[in-house]
Amino acid sequence: MSRTDPFSLLFAFSPRDIRIPPVSIKVSARIPEEKNGTVKTGFFKVKTREEVWDEFERFTPLAAEEISLAKALNRVLAEPIISKEDLPSFTRSIVDGYAVRARDTFGASESLPSFFEIVGEVGMGEMVSFELSGGKAARIPTGGMLPAGADSVVMVEYTEELDQKSVAISRSVAPLENVIRPGDDFKAGQEVLGGGQRLRPQEIGLLAGLGKKKIQVTKRPKVAIISTGDEIVPIDKEPRPGELRDINSHSLAAMVENCGGVPLQLGLSPDQFPTLRERCQEALDCADICLISGGSSVGSRDLTLDVLASFEGSEVLVHGVAISPGKPTLLVKTGEKGFWGLPGHVASAMIVFQVLVRPFMAYLRGAQLSLGEGRPVRARLNRNVASKHGREDFIRVRIIQEDGTLIAEPIFGESALISTLVRADGLVRIDRHTEGLYSGEVVEVISI
Amino acid sequence: MSRTDPFSLLFAFSPRDIRIPPVSIKVSARIPEEKNGTVKTGFFKVKTREEVWDEFERFTPLAAEEISLAKALNRVLAEPIISKEDLPSFTRSIVDGYAVRARDTFGASESLPSFFEIVGEVGMGEMVSFELSGGKAARIPTGGMLPAGADSVVMVEYTEELDQKSVAISRSVAPLENVIRPGDDFKAGQEVLGGGQRLRPQEIGLLAGLGKKKIQVTKRPKVAIISTGDEIVPIDKEPRPGELRDINSHSLAAMVENCGGVPLQLGLSPDQFPTLRERCQEALDCADICLISGGSSVGSRDLTLDVLASFEGSEVLVHGVAISPGKPTLLVKTGEKGFWGLPGHVASAMIVFQVLVRPFMAYLRGAQLSLGEGRPVRARLNRNVASKHGREDFIRVRIIQEDGTLIAEPIFGESALISTLVRADGLVRIDRHTEGLYSGEVVEVISI
Repeated sequence: MSRTDPFSLLFAFSPRDIRIPPVSIKVSARIPEEKNGTVKTGFFKVKTREEVWDEFERFTPLAAEEISLAKALNRVLAEPIISKEDLPSFTRSIVDGYAVRARDTFGASESLPSFFEIVGEVGMGEMVSFELSGGKAARIPTGGMLPAGADSVVMVEYTEELDQKSVAISRSVAPLENVIRPGDDFKAGQEVLGGGQRLRPQEIGLLAGLGKKKIQVTKRPKVAIISTGDEIVPIDKEPRPGELRDINSHSLAAMVENCGGVPLQLGLSPDQFPTLRERCQEALDCADICLISGGSSVGSRDLTLDVLASFEGSEVLVHGVAISPGKPTLLVKTGEKGFWGLPGHVASAMIVFQVLVRPFMAYLRGAQLSLGEGRPVRARLNRNVASKHGREDFIRVRIIQEDGTLIAEPIFGESALISTLVRADGLVRIDRHTEGLYSGEVVEVISI
Repeated sequence: MSRTDPFSLLFAFSPRDIRIPPVSIKVSARIPEEKNGTVKTGFFKVKTREEVWDEFERFTPLAAEEISLAKALNRVLAEPIISKEDLPSFTRSIVDGYAVRARDTFGASESLPSFFEIVGEVGMGEMVSFELSGGKAARIPTGGMLPAGADSVVMVEYTEELDQKSVAISRSVAPLENVIRPGDDFKAGQEVLGGGQRLRPQEIGLLAGLGKKKIQVTKRPKVAIISTGDEIVPIDKEPRPGELRDINSHSLAAMVENCGGVPLQLGLSPDQFPTLRERCQEALDCADICLISGGSSVGSRDLTLDVLASFEGSEVLVHGVAISPGKPTLLVKTGEKGFWGLPGHVASAMIVFQVLVRPFMAYLRGAQLSLGEGRPVRARLNRNVASKHGREDFIRVRIIQEDGTLIAEPIFGESALISTLVRADGLVRIDRHTEGLYSGEVVEVISI
């Protein structure tokens, strides 16, 4: 019995996904579904998405590296950041006005102002040398350091200088009004950012404020990309009838870049063992992850598996996932490298990237796993969508604004068409325990 | 009368924003609000955010440049893309199976299969040389080209080869079932992408499919960044009492990068005319946009204005915006360069970037203006938030997931604290025609 047979059987789970190589294999019976929505074959069990995510723990997250803060946007912290000092480090005014002791202003009003002696002026960036006592005030600019003795600032709007030495104050202030105190942002010894946190511009700003010119982040995953298929030609070649330009290498490289990886386009490989093995060896040498897309036919998928199995110590962790599109997905561990076999259909490959490879990259970076960037947007579905019990579906939708509400319109179309994703704003997930969604239901749209 | 007076008056609109230089200026009366929510001063009128956006049209969008598709992610198309060919260019099977004439399968069932003669096998990437006539079938892999005469494919699951030359088909197919036809993705002559469109991975894939190895995109805006303020020190310097590390240069550079610009950190300038003018000249020479942040005190804001006015042909387009935080914002046009004076408070500077500078960059790139990336997320506010009629407020909020619903919790805290944005997931906009939002209201959160 050839070793391709059980794999072919595996993919017989869903009639839409069944494939045969040109030399046909008889598939006479449907594989029965188990109660938990997964399917067993002789060798492999189709895994749920969650089970695939669990497999990630078999890999070691990437090492840390030190980088300059200027390069840190969207990188993931490799260690928590503890503040060594109070931020800010001194009591500052947040308005232009007069530093005073709050209790001296009590009762001040427009009809009965309080009068203060001006004893000085705070210069920006200067350590204040004088001290305030009762009934005294000091001019202070926004950001200026409060003199000792002062506990608040009266805004200039409520003051009038009578001469260089005295000011009338027409409104009372509470202690600490219009000032920020040491540690109001963050206190010394506090964990200000956790390990695994992705750095947004505000986190970059905070790290600047703490004087962190260099930080430890996890390395960016290097992701090799190989497109297979005898019908695929490079994009600068004119395809002959029966040939197609390589879409997957380019859209997958862009997705890798979008989620913080370094794409390495290794180019095309025909469906031949020696060439594909050579490409995979190259990927092993230069990358942390390798995406092999293509192989929409069983023959080509089996070739991918044969090639990967030929590397010593390879372990097939995932062989089929209970999602649609994307069932014929493969994850093989070779050393610490993860090889993904992605479907050949352009939209399927991108959706599998979104729901499996992107979280895998997040895992390797030490970040939190999620189905998408940011929070899903809620919208109202405007069509019924059928699904299959035991399979998690990802439906492409377009979002339409209608009378102030958001409508999610399913895009029905073959996964072989890139236009279905060009027209889409996002994906709606249909849980594997339901059999579809009804028009009018509120759904969550993962942006893609 | 010194020219600083009217500007000081201008900023007297909101008591929270009023500032004076150490040498005080008397501000005796509040400026009355006009019915339309804007405020006039002797020289300048505080503009609404929409009016600021309108001013962008005074600038010429950036020129186009040709780049390789590999560099095109998140760039903005400078011209529409017209497909020169049908995509795909030939009729393809989307399953493994048998190409047939659909009408020959009518009536086929499991109990009464139809029998077909196998006349050939389609190879991947090959032009098919044979033709199908009635009662004939050909083996075809996923992605294979349909032979002339065939109009559909029967999936292998519903077939059984009896010998090398004949196959039994147990289910009928409709014409065009399991195939995609020329132009199903996009048709020749069709505008497939519009000018001004930002390129996501799927658009990159589409361009690859059309063989566009090089494309015309608008240039990335070069954005010079200057931090001013005598109290600000570089992040690798230990601040003395009264000094602070430069947060704004770093968080703004990250925001520029995040929205497709090239940040050029020109460093710090003390509040002195010659140094600041030198920095601004440098910005004029190397950048399309310059952000000058700092100047929380009126004295320093006036200095910025004086420096910019000293360049020939400078025009003050915006001097005060009816938003909070961010009222003391400045936009000066010098030639085709846009100088932005941003508030000094860290959170204010970032929020002004988000609601004004980011859309300005989008305008220069020829893209659509919006308040944020992607669609806002809807959440339920869990506190009352007061606002002021005539002023558009941007409230920092944290999003909390609670029993499957999203709660937006306002973060109250001074704009001088970066922690208010580190804790935030987004901004909630309060329209200038309302006076606040009630707890329980559903609001839209712009991610930040």
